[in-house]
Amino acid sequence: MSLSTEQTVLDAHYMARALELARKGLYSTHPNPRVGCVIVQAGAVVGEGWHVRAGEPHAEVHALREAGENARGATAYVTLEPCSHFGRTPPCADALVKAGVARVVAAMQDPNPEVAGRGLKRLAEAGIAVHSGVLEGEARALNQGFLKRMEHGVPFVRVKLAMSLDGRTAMASGESQWITGPEARSAVQRLRAQASVVLTGADSVMADKARMTVRPAELGLDPEQTALAERRPPLRVLIDGRLRVPLDAAFFTAGPALVVTCVPGAAARYQALGHELLEVPGADGHVDLRRVLTELADRGINEVLVEAGPRLAGAFARQGLVDEYQLFVAGTFLGSTARPLLDWPLERMNQAPRLKIIEMRAIGSDWRVTAIPDPAPGV
Amino acid sequence: MSLSTEQTVLDAHYMARALELARKGLYSTHPNPRVGCVIVQAGAVVGEGWHVRAGEPHAEVHALREAGENARGATAYVTLEPCSHFGRTPPCADALVKAGVARVVAAMQDPNPEVAGRGLKRLAEAGIAVHSGVLEGEARALNQGFLKRMEHGVPFVRVKLAMSLDGRTAMASGESQWITGPEARSAVQRLRAQASVVLTGADSVMADKARMTVRPAELGLDPEQTALAERRPPLRVLIDGRLRVPLDAAFFTAGPALVVTCVPGAAARYQALGHELLEVPGADGHVDLRRVLTELADRGINEVLVEAGPRLAGAFARQGLVDEYQLFVAGTFLGSTARPLLDWPLERMNQAPRLKIIEMRAIGSDWRVTAIPDPAPGV
Repeated sequence: MSLSTEQTVLDAHYMARALELARKGLYSTHPNPRVGCVIVQAGAVVGEGWHVRAGEPHAEVHALREAGENARGATAYVTLEPCSHFGRTPPCADALVKAGVARVVAAMQDPNPEVAGRGLKRLAEAGIAVHSGVLEGEARALNQGFLKRMEHGVPFVRVKLAMSLDGRTAMASGESQWITGPEARSAVQRLRAQASVVLTGADSVMADKARMTVRPAELGLDPEQTALAERRPPLRVLIDGRLRVPLDAAFFTAGPALVVTCVPGAAARYQALGHELLEVPGADGHVDLRRVLTELADRGINEVLVEAGPRLAGAFARQGLVDEYQLFVAGTFLGSTARPLLDWPLERMNQAPRLKIIEMRAIGSDWRVTAIPDPAPGV
Repeated sequence: MSLSTEQTVLDAHYMARALELARKGLYSTHPNPRVGCVIVQAGAVVGEGWHVRAGEPHAEVHALREAGENARGATAYVTLEPCSHFGRTPPCADALVKAGVARVVAAMQDPNPEVAGRGLKRLAEAGIAVHSGVLEGEARALNQGFLKRMEHGVPFVRVKLAMSLDGRTAMASGESQWITGPEARSAVQRLRAQASVVLTGADSVMADKARMTVRPAELGLDPEQTALAERRPPLRVLIDGRLRVPLDAAFFTAGPALVVTCVPGAAARYQALGHELLEVPGADGHVDLRRVLTELADRGINEVLVEAGPRLAGAFARQGLVDEYQLFVAGTFLGSTARPLLDWPLERMNQAPRLKIIEMRAIGSDWRVTAIPDPAPGV
C-alpha cells in the first residue's frame, strides 16, 4: 500500500468511529445536527466526543477536553465541518486552532450558511492541514433532516405506513388494528423518537384514539439512549383543517401540541389548554402542507415523521413532499375491498410515480421496506 | 469432534453435493422428481450422477457407472430413497446391492406409494447400512411438487403476481404493461420453465395477448440448462369457462394447449387444431379449480405456475388452493383506483388470511417476495 492509500484507509477508519459516536445523538441533538469527533495522536485515539444536545458543547469540545495536551500535533476527525461562528457556544474552529491540532479531516462541509466552508477556511489559514469528504455519504445520511432544512428550507419528510402484502391498511368499514408485530411497533417508536415532529391527521386521531407520543419502554434502546429520547420528545403536530378533533381527545390530553387548521379565530381556545393553533389555509380548502413544512423548518424542525391515514399521507405523496417511505409489511392479505395505502387516484401508467426501493428487511415476523421517490423531490 | 459428529458433518457435506447435482434436473425431470447421487469411497468422491429426464437412468445408475469397481464397500448418498419397483427403468435398490455398496444415506424416504420405505428396506435386508433424513428439508424443497402430488394427490400451486409497492397490478382502465424490469422477467421465465404446467385465464390471454411460453433466450441459464428447459416445455393450461378466447389467439397459435371450460360439446373444434378441451364445470358456474388440480395430478403434473389476472388468481387464493406466492414488486405506486392484487373481498380483519413471508430479495431494480399461507393449505 502506498502511503497515501494507507492514509485513506486510516482516515476512513477513524471517520467511521466518529460517525458511530455521532449516532449516539440520534434522539437528542434536534435542532442541531448529530456530530461526532475523534482525535488521533501517533496512531492512537486520544480523545472522543459527540454532540449531545443543543446548548451543550459540540463534539470537538468534548474530544479536545479528553485529549488535553495530546491534541497538540494530532489529527481531528469530525463528521461535520467545525463551526466558525458564535452560536450558543464559541466556534469549534477556534478551539481546534488553540489546541494545536495539525490536521483536520471532515466528512462534509456544513451546509449551514453561517458556516459553509468558513470553518475549514479558518483552520487552513491557521496553518492546519484540512481535508473534507471522507465517508461523506454516510455523514449526510445521518443528518438528512438538517441538510434538507439548510439546503432547501424544508424538513426531511418520512412517511410511515403499515400495510398488508396486498397494499391495504384497513378494512372498508374502517375496522383496523395493529397488523404488524411488536418488533415493527418498536421500530416505529424509534422513528418517532428520532423525529423533530410527529405529524398526524384528524382521521387517525379520531379513529384510532392515537396519542402519537413516544413510549420509552417500547423503544428497545439502552438506558442512556432511552433517557436521551425521553428528555427530548418530538413535537406532535395535528393537521385538522376543520378542527374536528375535540380538545378532550387523548391526543390533546397527552401533552401540548401544534394544531394546523384552515379555521380562523380559534387560537385562544387551544392556547388556554397549552396547545398552539396555526392557520395555514390553502387555496383548495385544505391546509397548505407545503407552507406548513416551510413554517416548521423556520422553527428548526429537521425531520418530520408522517403517521397518518391514506388521505393525509396521500396528500403529502401527491404533492411531491415525501422524501422517504417506511413501509411496514405484514404477512396477510386484507383483500380487494380494503382501504388503499394512499388516496392517490391515477388514470394512466405514465402518471405512476417511480420509487427506488432502498432496502427490504425482516423485522420480527413482518418486513420493513424503505423506498424513496426517484428522482428525489425538489423543494 | 466425536466420530459420530464427524460422520454427521461428512454426511451433510456429501448430501449437499448430491442436492447440487439434483438441482441440475430442475427444468427437465418432470413428471419424475429431481434426484442426485454421490458415491464416496475412502473419503473421495468416486461417482456422481443426477436424473436428467423421465425414461432415462436414475441418478444412482449414472453414479454407479462412473464409480465402477470403486463402488464396492463405498457409501452412496442419494437425495431420495432409491426406488424398489420396476418403472421405465429397473429398481435402483437392486443396482446398489449388486454394486456392493456398504452404506446408503438418503435425504428422505420416497413418498411414492410404490416405494415408501421399501427401497431402504430392501437395502437393509441385503446387509447394507441404511440412514435416512440427512438435509431432508432441503431435499423436500427441491421436489415440493412431486411430494404434494404423492402425498395429497394435487400439484404444488405457485402463484406469480407482479405488483406495485401499493399492491396494484394495472390501472382501472385495464391499461397495463410490464412494470418490472428484465431481471424479474427472466426469473418469471425460469419459474415457467421449472413448472409442469403454466396456467392462465381468458382475461390475461385476451388483454395481454399472452402466449405463456418459455423463451429460452430470456432464461438466463447456461447452455446445458437452457437446452434441457427447451426440450421439456411446460404444458400450457387455459381456464376459459365460457370459451371466450378465439382459436386464432396468439396463445393457441403458439402451440398445443389444454383448455378447461364449463361449455359442453366443443372438444372437436379444439382437437382439430391440436388442443385438448376438458369440461370441468363447477357448481357456481365457474370451472371447478380443485377438480382441475386433481385431474392435472392424475396426469403426473407436479408444479403448477398460475400466471393470471386478479380474478382467476383471486379464485385460487379464496379457495385455499395456493401453496406459494411469488410477488414481483416494482418501485412505483399505481394509485388507489388501480386494480387490486387479487379479487378477494373481505369484510372483517378476522377473515384476513395469514401469510408467512419467507424471503424478500432484490432482483434488478425490483424486489421479489416469497410468501406462503400460514398454516399451509390442506388438500
